Amino acid sequence: MAKFNVSTPSGFVEFTPTQERERQRWIGVIKSVFERHGFPQIDTPLVERAENFTAKGGNPKEIYVLDRLLREDAIDQDKDQRAIRFDHTVPLALYVARHFNDLTFPFRRSAIGPVMRGERAQKGRFRQFDQCDIDVIGNGSLSLRNDAQMVAIIVELFEELMPDQKFVVKINNRKILTGLFDQLGITNDEWKNVLGVVDDLEKIGHEKVQKGLEELGLSKEVSEKILAFTEIAGTNDEILKKAAELLGEPAGELQEVVKTLREMNIDESLFQVDLSIARGLDYYTGTVYETNLIGYEGLGSVCSGGRYDDLANVFTNKDLPGVGISIGLTRLLWQLFDAEIIKPTQASSSDVIVLTRGEEYMKDALEIGALIRKEGIAVENYLENKKTDKQIDHARKKGIPIGVIVGKDIMVENFERKEQKEASKESVVQAIKSIS
Amino acid sequence: MAKFNVSTPSGFVEFTPTQERERQRWIGVIKSVFERHGFPQIDTPLVERAENFTAKGGNPKEIYVLDRLLREDAIDQDKDQRAIRFDHTVPLALYVARHFNDLTFPFRRSAIGPVMRGERAQKGRFRQFDQCDIDVIGNGSLSLRNDAQMVAIIVELFEELMPDQKFVVKINNRKILTGLFDQLGITNDEWKNVLGVVDDLEKIGHEKVQKGLEELGLSKEVSEKILAFTEIAGTNDEILKKAAELLGEPAGELQEVVKTLREMNIDESLFQVDLSIARGLDYYTGTVYETNLIGYEGLGSVCSGGRYDDLANVFTNKDLPGVGISIGLTRLLWQLFDAEIIKPTQASSSDVIVLTRGEEYMKDALEIGALIRKEGIAVENYLENKKTDKQIDHARKKGIPIGVIVGKDIMVENFERKEQKEASKESVVQAIKSIS
Repeated sequence: MAKFNVSTPSGFVEFTPTQERERQRWIGVIKSVFERHGFPQIDTPLVERAENFTAKGGNPKEIYVLDRLLREDAIDQDKDQRAIRFDHTVPLALYVARHFNDLTFPFRRSAIGPVMRGERAQKGRFRQFDQCDIDVIGNGSLSLRNDAQMVAIIVELFEELMPDQKFVVKINNRKILTGLFDQLGITNDEWKNVLGVVDDLEKIGHEKVQKGLEELGLSKEVSEKILAFTEIAGTNDEILKKAAELLGEPAGELQEVVKTLREMNIDESLFQVDLSIARGLDYYTGTVYETNLIGYEGLGSVCSGGRYDDLANVFTNKDLPGVGISIGLTRLLWQLFDAEIIKPTQASSSDVIVLTRGEEYMKDALEIGALIRKEGIAVENYLENKKTDKQIDHARKKGIPIGVIVGKDIMVENFERKEQKEASKESVVQAIKSIS
Repeated sequence: MAKFNVSTPSGFVEFTPTQERERQRWIGVIKSVFERHGFPQIDTPLVERAENFTAKGGNPKEIYVLDRLLREDAIDQDKDQRAIRFDHTVPLALYVARHFNDLTFPFRRSAIGPVMRGERAQKGRFRQFDQCDIDVIGNGSLSLRNDAQMVAIIVELFEELMPDQKFVVKINNRKILTGLFDQLGITNDEWKNVLGVVDDLEKIGHEKVQKGLEELGLSKEVSEKILAFTEIAGTNDEILKKAAELLGEPAGELQEVVKTLREMNIDESLFQVDLSIARGLDYYTGTVYETNLIGYEGLGSVCSGGRYDDLANVFTNKDLPGVGISIGLTRLLWQLFDAEIIKPTQASSSDVIVLTRGEEYMKDALEIGALIRKEGIAVENYLENKKTDKQIDHARKKGIPIGVIVGKDIMVENFERKEQKEASKESVVQAIKSIS
């Protein structure tokens, strides 16, 4: 039938209308929670100079650069390579460097939008995906209260995104792990590899981590000490106490963050000190976060982040400490749809649809649609000349919950509950509210 | 100072925090008006197969394709070229072709997001820019009422986006112009060029258009007839009447659209039949729209669109008529900022900021912040250990209108009006509302 291969390119995903409706709800909630806490969305270009990405550790094999389908040298006056962003952090560093004098510090912003990585395409991994980030950047210093605020925001996010789903935010501090490594005589050069292995504890289990550590050249004794430490269990206070006993000062920041979380009245069941959390990225220097959905730990962390000492060191000579979190939205939603943890049913953004019992009632129907819309209710008019039954089919297929059927009378119907109510033009909005 | 060239690449624009705040407001209003009328946002990938873009008339010199900064053939298993979308219409056609069986027709969707064109960079023209589109696609047929609905939506958009700005939606129908050309013996091959010249009437004036038409090989007499026709003036009814007298049937659709607009109670001053509107794109086949800001006609049309016979003819063998409109958001906002028609002042998304008279009040301040946030008010806590004056400076620089200063007492202050009000924890939300 089709003359062209119309399928999406490998690694580029799009959702069906019902899935996309759920995705839009998530984006709306995420944006709203971020902004409610003082993190306005600031969009930056998808494209930057390639050299600025590689300077901040981008993998050249995965960085997409732009070319033109048909080259015409006159247009391409600047020969530098242009690349597509692979995260929101490097663009943030560039934004801060570019607009330093226009910004008020601590500078807070959110970024919600696509990034691209030319990874090998595989199930559930995409080459274009949405990241939803917030970061707060200090000029010279940044209070640890910001580290606690991130936890408060993760909590509010998942309470709104998945109200029936239990979750826990796991917190640690990289200084604790590196303090331990210092004690054990592990050098700075070895840290990164050791952290990488420790980070997989939940995924691969105790024995494989021990084996992994020994493969890095650590003695059995040191490996066991690391594992014993990261597996310290108990209440938050018990874990913090043991860490402080063993390490002293390096545990101080984490204690401070937990204290602030309590001042914020965050429910103690929602955050958990976990000395094994390391986060792979090597630019984290203090607090680190992961978030697990209880019962679905296999999905991995659904919201992660941490504190970093210096956002933009290669782009400015300012000292810019920051802390941030990120949700990998596309991957997470894809997993939730795939495992049927979320099963969306509504394809339409409309709460109400206005139908008619014939063309002669269209003028009334348009007027009623406008009346309802004025009340801030999302309402669409069915505009085609079709039988009423066909119109009702259309409404059901789109999953619109309420119909207003305009004929000699005005009937308001809740399609799901099969409840009906007669109304007048004056009472139609109230009838909709009472039947919703 | 900087070790790298951190500036945005030529043709890729980003806004300052205050400008970006206004941009985000526009996106929010546009999304909300679209959804209120039954057009849910559906995002599609930025990237498609290049051949699908050229099949729908994309200019290969302007289409960006993806490459990798460092090529590794193992990853690039599929050798077909991947290109970045240059509009939302081709992705819509592909989406409809891909999900045909999942869609309910008429299918409505909005698209708000970036597209890229590798044009020569020049002032106010960008290589990445946001387009905000809605389209409704029928399966086999689509009522002309949808054409009227587009006008109603443009009206609602600009009433919310620029409440103090007058504007007018200009409507025409391509069948009227092509009907006239038939009468004058202008062949189908000549239509496109003639429409292109006529389209510039407002921009370049009567004489230059006449010259342009004669340069296309039309006689003086024919050129004058075309101009006389497109310059027919009067009320909407007078223009429609003359068009109907001269052409008969071709004016019928436009009459029908105007009739529906009146049924929708759209104020007659907000839409204007204008027989010179052609729209450059050759895929429009019926109704066409342009929108002008009164007093700023030089900006060109700020929202345009039209009816097309067949959305996806190269991708499916279905008959899919549609009608849609589009706002070129980045260019429009850039123009409005540049000409200082809009002068944004607030960099923050917060309506309220909570400050302290010392660290000892931080716990109270955090609690008060949470209380205010629970009421749905966007509020940020100032978390650093700084003097109160510095905190107030911070709030002012970000343009946050209301401050809550927590010490022994709780003071609510409107920074702009320099009004203060004492409050308790219990009354702080009400005090904010009364002082806003």
